Amino acid sequence: MNPQIYLDHAAATPVSPKALAAMQPYFSEFFYNPSAPYLPAKRVREAYEMAKDTIAHVIGTKGVDLVITSGATESINLAFTSCLGKVLTLPIEHAAVLEAAKLHDYDLIKVNRAGLVDLTDFRQKLTPDVELVSVSLANNELGTIQPLAEIAEIIRAERQSRLRNDNSTPLYFHSDASQALNLLDINVARLGVDLLTLNAAKCGGPKGVGALYLAHGVKLSPVAVGGGQERGLRSGTENVPGVIGFATAASEAKAHLAGSRKKYQEMTKVLRTELANLADFSHFPAPVFLGNPKHQLANFAPVCFPGLDAERLIYKLEQQGIYLSTGAACAANKGSKSHVLAAIGLSDPEIAGSLRISLGSTNTLGQIKRAALTIREAVEQEYRRLAKATL
Amino acid sequence: MNPQIYLDHAAATPVSPKALAAMQPYFSEFFYNPSAPYLPAKRVREAYEMAKDTIAHVIGTKGVDLVITSGATESINLAFTSCLGKVLTLPIEHAAVLEAAKLHDYDLIKVNRAGLVDLTDFRQKLTPDVELVSVSLANNELGTIQPLAEIAEIIRAERQSRLRNDNSTPLYFHSDASQALNLLDINVARLGVDLLTLNAAKCGGPKGVGALYLAHGVKLSPVAVGGGQERGLRSGTENVPGVIGFATAASEAKAHLAGSRKKYQEMTKVLRTELANLADFSHFPAPVFLGNPKHQLANFAPVCFPGLDAERLIYKLEQQGIYLSTGAACAANKGSKSHVLAAIGLSDPEIAGSLRISLGSTNTLGQIKRAALTIREAVEQEYRRLAKATL
Repeated sequence: MNPQIYLDHAAATPVSPKALAAMQPYFSEFFYNPSAPYLPAKRVREAYEMAKDTIAHVIGTKGVDLVITSGATESINLAFTSCLGKVLTLPIEHAAVLEAAKLHDYDLIKVNRAGLVDLTDFRQKLTPDVELVSVSLANNELGTIQPLAEIAEIIRAERQSRLRNDNSTPLYFHSDASQALNLLDINVARLGVDLLTLNAAKCGGPKGVGALYLAHGVKLSPVAVGGGQERGLRSGTENVPGVIGFATAASEAKAHLAGSRKKYQEMTKVLRTELANLADFSHFPAPVFLGNPKHQLANFAPVCFPGLDAERLIYKLEQQGIYLSTGAACAANKGSKSHVLAAIGLSDPEIAGSLRISLGSTNTLGQIKRAALTIREAVEQEYRRLAKATL
Repeated sequence: MNPQIYLDHAAATPVSPKALAAMQPYFSEFFYNPSAPYLPAKRVREAYEMAKDTIAHVIGTKGVDLVITSGATESINLAFTSCLGKVLTLPIEHAAVLEAAKLHDYDLIKVNRAGLVDLTDFRQKLTPDVELVSVSLANNELGTIQPLAEIAEIIRAERQSRLRNDNSTPLYFHSDASQALNLLDINVARLGVDLLTLNAAKCGGPKGVGALYLAHGVKLSPVAVGGGQERGLRSGTENVPGVIGFATAASEAKAHLAGSRKKYQEMTKVLRTELANLADFSHFPAPVFLGNPKHQLANFAPVCFPGLDAERLIYKLEQQGIYLSTGAACAANKGSKSHVLAAIGLSDPEIAGSLRISLGSTNTLGQIKRAALTIREAVEQEYRRLAKATL
């Protein structure tokens, strides 16, 4: 059997060896409740707060500006408590954002075929009653990186206009940065966001841990009440090992940002070149690479093979030890088609023929070369099978 | 320096070696998103569902009846979404229950000096508008075990009376069993609860994991919306290692239930005998053991030394490697006095002189004998110091 090649890092990443090592002592040795009054517990509290600071520094802020949560979904739900009124978001956002938006009055901003926000449409829809704008830093199926600073600029202008018009409706800017922490140099001030969602499990940290950055003055309501931890916004005994692991993974990701990006750029180039090289184009349609590489996370290479059934491809590739998906794992599990690909204007057959390839720390260039060849062969076989079937 | 003696297991327990070993492969090896479509991810899904089944079996039910959460606080908050109307609970409940109750119309049922629910008062307060009764299985400061089956019986009678009177107001029974899983043989049917909160971190599992049992027909609202995991009641990628660790710890606890209880009974007896043996009772007041051992978790030995300052005692004992607390860690952190001890009728000076001693897996009989002696000496020193100061 071939060694496995994992190409679904957007769905989950392994905990990095460093992060796992850093977590270990906090399970059974330094297991104390960080709120307890004796010295070893106070040391755990210090380690916890230092870990929060580390995570915060990675995004250019301080630990006190973070609320630790059980993951991105909880962070997003908490961010949305800032808003009683109208929400603007993108139709390609993660289900957590869209479902949270649906609990409000909301409108969707147009995106182009690469999944990029339409700023003209945004300006028009940013009416004086909008209270929250939620736009992911990078999309979880396309890897599309949104121009958050430009969005923030438009939001600032709207705030000034409200000030002039004695309109006291608050306006906050939230971004889900779950997919971006190990690929982009994130700085909350530069991005101009008021709220930013982070996810440990997508950047080499453990599952079940996330964070929400909140700027000074943003008013949130707790998602869970109780002991009053995390400034009262998120009660419950702190997940100390989880946060230590998250901090280690986040600072590791930050340290290797440039190197990772270069590595993934090379890999996705190999992948695209090989796949574009499909034999016999007279009979097969050319693959369509989704998104725009200029505005895309370097580790994403989503691709559509028109006419094919991606589910069959995934199964075929799984037999050869190559693991990838059609889209978000939670949607895959429900057998529903990708709302992201639908929103960028793909037809149902195009959606059915699309693969999400997302690279990560487990991949080597050798793996990618082999994977590219194997995927190409599988695609060719499928096209030949279809050609025969229609004869 | 003396080896450490940890006497605050009600605040946090170390992850058991078995549980930690069971978790390990799921961090970096079997790290896949359990909702992803390829075989290794499906195996992770199976392991996850099996772990849920294991936890469920420990309380006499099936995995499908559990919602996995990020801890007891989240479970409690989720349980309280069953109720739009009036809540009845105890004044000695954990802050998570009390704060959740305060978001509703609520009333408190009287408890006696041992912290036991007053069933007569309960019957009177269980008016036709009550929708949720929340009574912990065992209190987190006193270890007091409540007669849940008797409460359930009264609730059943009230439901029948509502049926007869065409009153369609639902009535659910929730219990926070966070402290009890490794000391009591829990069976949801026998207890008669509709909702039961479990906490991994109090029974040798990891922090950041909990569960909520819900009986068929109980209607809850999600605390976080998104990908639709956990029957849509708790979205977010599943914390696979956490749940595997919880399952291992829970079944371990169940397997050793009788042995643990016997061990702790012996230990608390030694502790009580030694402390009751304070020198010079003509000058010192006798210690008051809180709660009633007949209705108390075997590992709890809360005690009040009238006139002393427990904070000073804790600090003195910490110097000698003995770690204990005055009450719930989250309250200790805020420097507030115990609402539990106030509710059972202790005066402020009595509360100030109270220690929560809670034994656990880290303790040996030798440790307890030494701890008892050290605590007694510290108490005697403090009483002598006070006697001198008042001369």
